[in-house]
Amino acid sequence: MTAEQVATLLLALGCVIALARLFGAAAKRIGQPPVIGEIVAGIAVGPSLFGAGLGDALFPTDIRPALAALANVGLVLFMFIVGYEIDPATLRGRGRAAVSVALGSTLLPLGLGVALAFWLAGRHDVRNVAAFVLFLGAAMAVTAMPVLARILADRGMVRTTVGAMALAAGAVGDIVAWSLLAFVVAMASASGVVPWHLVLIVPYLVVMFLLVRPALRRLAKEKLTPDVLALVLVGLLLSCWCAEWLGVHAIFGAFLFGAVMPRDRPALRHEILGRLEQVSVLLLLPCFFVIAGLRVDLSALGGGGLVELAAILLVAITGKVAGAYAGARLHGMDRRRSGALATLMNTRGLTELVILTVGLQLGILDTRMFSMMVVMALVTTAMAGPVLAVIYPAGQVEADRMAAERDALGAPTAFRVLVEVPPGEHAASVVREATRLARERAPAAVVVLNRLVPYPSPPEVSTGLTGELLAMTAALTELAELAAPIRDAGLTAHVTAHFTTDPIGDLAHQISAAAPDLVVTAGSRTDWPKGVRHVTVKAIEARDGEAVKASGDDTMKR
Amino acid sequence: MTAEQVATLLLALGCVIALARLFGAAAKRIGQPPVIGEIVAGIAVGPSLFGAGLGDALFPTDIRPALAALANVGLVLFMFIVGYEIDPATLRGRGRAAVSVALGSTLLPLGLGVALAFWLAGRHDVRNVAAFVLFLGAAMAVTAMPVLARILADRGMVRTTVGAMALAAGAVGDIVAWSLLAFVVAMASASGVVPWHLVLIVPYLVVMFLLVRPALRRLAKEKLTPDVLALVLVGLLLSCWCAEWLGVHAIFGAFLFGAVMPRDRPALRHEILGRLEQVSVLLLLPCFFVIAGLRVDLSALGGGGLVELAAILLVAITGKVAGAYAGARLHGMDRRRSGALATLMNTRGLTELVILTVGLQLGILDTRMFSMMVVMALVTTAMAGPVLAVIYPAGQVEADRMAAERDALGAPTAFRVLVEVPPGEHAASVVREATRLARERAPAAVVVLNRLVPYPSPPEVSTGLTGELLAMTAALTELAELAAPIRDAGLTAHVTAHFTTDPIGDLAHQISAAAPDLVVTAGSRTDWPKGVRHVTVKAIEARDGEAVKASGDDTMKR
Repeated sequence: MTAEQVATLLLALGCVIALARLFGAAAKRIGQPPVIGEIVAGIAVGPSLFGAGLGDALFPTDIRPALAALANVGLVLFMFIVGYEIDPATLRGRGRAAVSVALGSTLLPLGLGVALAFWLAGRHDVRNVAAFVLFLGAAMAVTAMPVLARILADRGMVRTTVGAMALAAGAVGDIVAWSLLAFVVAMASASGVVPWHLVLIVPYLVVMFLLVRPALRRLAKEKLTPDVLALVLVGLLLSCWCAEWLGVHAIFGAFLFGAVMPRDRPALRHEILGRLEQVSVLLLLPCFFVIAGLRVDLSALGGGGLVELAAILLVAITGKVAGAYAGARLHGMDRRRSGALATLMNTRGLTELVILTVGLQLGILDTRMFSMMVVMALVTTAMAGPVLAVIYPAGQVEADRMAAERDALGAPTAFRVLVEVPPGEHAASVVREATRLARERAPAAVVVLNRLVPYPSPPEVSTGLTGELLAMTAALTELAELAAPIRDAGLTAHVTAHFTTDPIGDLAHQISAAAPDLVVTAGSRTDWPKGVRHVTVKAIEARDGEAVKASGDDTMKR
Repeated sequence: MTAEQVATLLLALGCVIALARLFGAAAKRIGQPPVIGEIVAGIAVGPSLFGAGLGDALFPTDIRPALAALANVGLVLFMFIVGYEIDPATLRGRGRAAVSVALGSTLLPLGLGVALAFWLAGRHDVRNVAAFVLFLGAAMAVTAMPVLARILADRGMVRTTVGAMALAAGAVGDIVAWSLLAFVVAMASASGVVPWHLVLIVPYLVVMFLLVRPALRRLAKEKLTPDVLALVLVGLLLSCWCAEWLGVHAIFGAFLFGAVMPRDRPALRHEILGRLEQVSVLLLLPCFFVIAGLRVDLSALGGGGLVELAAILLVAITGKVAGAYAGARLHGMDRRRSGALATLMNTRGLTELVILTVGLQLGILDTRMFSMMVVMALVTTAMAGPVLAVIYPAGQVEADRMAAERDALGAPTAFRVLVEVPPGEHAASVVREATRLARERAPAAVVVLNRLVPYPSPPEVSTGLTGELLAMTAALTELAELAAPIRDAGLTAHVTAHFTTDPIGDLAHQISAAAPDLVVTAGSRTDWPKGVRHVTVKAIEARDGEAVKASGDDTMKR
């Protein structure tokens, strides 16, 4: 690269970041997830609105490969994050219902998509009809977990039945859709003759799950050192290369490497994801949006294109919504909540864009097809917010949350104790003290361990990834461990956790909703709602120099 | 980029990261800074050792532009970090001595380098002799602040006179050398005819210092939000583009943008630098080392080349060491310490590599010249450790540190109180309590506020950047504020801070070295050396819910 090309590239990167932030902020302003704005920013610099001139001026042809390189690194990191964030814990207790929602919302759009694709194949420049048909079906069947998670968190829906079910179904759906796509891609790149490479996919999977997974578990300790991060990155890049060499796309290697990362070290997971998200979200993914947007050309659609677009939207929305709705109804969820769940499953977001880019790279989609599918991704994502506001309004969400609280506290005839468990090493002492107090008062008391998990506002990560959900999972896991000795003491114990931007206000709200007989907290809060009996356990001083360390682990920073 | 090129790029990135970590670890094993190993890794894949075959296999020609793009982004981030880390506070109290060391260690190698360059110009493919001569002079005059800082921290020399002087002189030298280089580059790219662009450098500087600097101060609050980080990145990239358009290289724009960042927000600075260092050190700078190493060809030097190399080494080392030594002696430093300081100023490290790459990009240096100068950078950096071990051995460092302790505590006739100030919001309470105790015992007591700053081991950042020094500066600033009320109470107050990997052991050591009359600490440590009188101030409970937040700011994590 000459010094001039370097300067042009740096200017282009500056534009990319600025555009992504501005359009993302504008989307937030109108109540949409920022990712909508960032995708629109990419389309805006492409040929659709102002012709090819703007894109060529900002991103001259000689720096496009460099920009594409950055975009591809971003894509790999994104897919690794998606794989790493799949959490089997979300399935606990709702496995069968989640599987039926996931299958409904995957198979129906897949089937309808395949049918539509046969019609579209005749109207486009399609080289391999079988690959095109299967690819389009799979692309219809995708759900965007990151956007889904962000919507749930923004609306306080994570702890409701609808929210928990959406997360579980999304996780199952992700695995189904990505496996399907890997198969289609392998088929498309094999193009008729099966190369011997493809046979090696099975040993690759075996190696990843039986060798790499235990090796990672042994090597990656709880603390993230630069060596561990380097190891993870090198492994990730090698896995991508293997996947590509085997005839499936590099992104599947990234997804799979994320999936085999050890799940039982929440601190490590949080640190790795936090670091990679910052880089990829701020710098690399915006490059991806621009590279994708430059390929979208809506101006060339024409009348026939609009008919096709309408058909695509109809199939995508009907298939996804009806499939998910049917799956939810089958397991006894009521109409309103089934509808909300179906609307959530219908978001395609960034995940769809990733798949479409793969289709374009492999020559399965032509530019017109690619452009229409991008519009479909935008529409399905943008409609989630407004539709939810109508069929599952804030009041209903609130009522469901309160019901969940009451259910957790059990029958009002029992003596019910609500413990707000502080983060950090004082947690165990507070729980011990609360158990003692509860037993003194009633031998059959119900103890609820609660943790208010801080929710950063404005969100640190704008494309809607699920770092916060990890904090939630970690909190629930910790509380579940703390609950065991309470049960050993013959009491009943439940655990709950909530996102909050206002811990004191939310705790007050929780108390008035559930009306417990006793509240135990750490610290010395004095601003309780009137008439609530409560006991405060002072933060316990550790016996030696460890005291400083203990409170240093605190995550209640706001 | 095709899917295959993407896979090749990802594999290449995996190799780059793995090589950098392995060679860096090997360098550490033999007592050298990791950056030595990382540069050697770059050279090893280049044509020097195994011919062009290895480099071409790992990094095929069609992915080189992508790799170069990543390397250049890394370079820009690195130069921004170098500019941002220049700290006027290091000059406090030793401005004149530092300036004389900096000038000595810049001007002498510059002069000798210019003389040598006239001889070399006849033996190389030189298009613009004036540019070549000045460039080589400036390249001889560089000191690598990041490596310097890392060596100081690793050897516990930061708080000694030699260490403080080296940091101050390095900061002044950085500004002198980069200004000079910007001038040379502008001259070289103007190549005879001065383009009108160059005239705009003055207004560019005026805008950066008088408009951008106050604007950044207003926009960038203490907390780093994604919007602030995006703003900084966009501003940085625009500044690079401006510098390039004005005829100086993009890296000077990056350096200048770092220099105008607000200095008075240590938390913001720490966060920005921490984030960028992680990305650039782990992923992007290794790309830079490889791109640079691929251009180094030592196999083509031949007999004449070895003579030239010897001359370059002689001039580089003699000029730098003699210049710095003379500057130090001029201000009354003894021989041993002047020698140690001169050895430190002689490290070229990564900074030299940056400058040489610019010279190669602009066509000022040919490949042979570039290769020899890279060897010079390696040799001068690698010699610092062994030479220091001989002329300024660990025992001497220790003695100087103890002397600094005793000086800080003042005459042994006074009643002397050592306060270990905990990080976080309890600091003020501990200092208040210590002041009360000191006044009770002696109205003219000497109070030393000390903070042990945790030093991560193994270091998080392997190329020797100075994130830790920021923590040190922040600690000293905080302690200086806490000292003011002690002086108002009529007592004498001093502040000190030390890096430590073992706070309890180091504190015990400090107490036996300085023998204070009273020690005040927070927490309840019981493992004191025998016979030391001490008072423990328990961590103070804040009055409301803030208590949790207060201890959450704690940085004593180990």
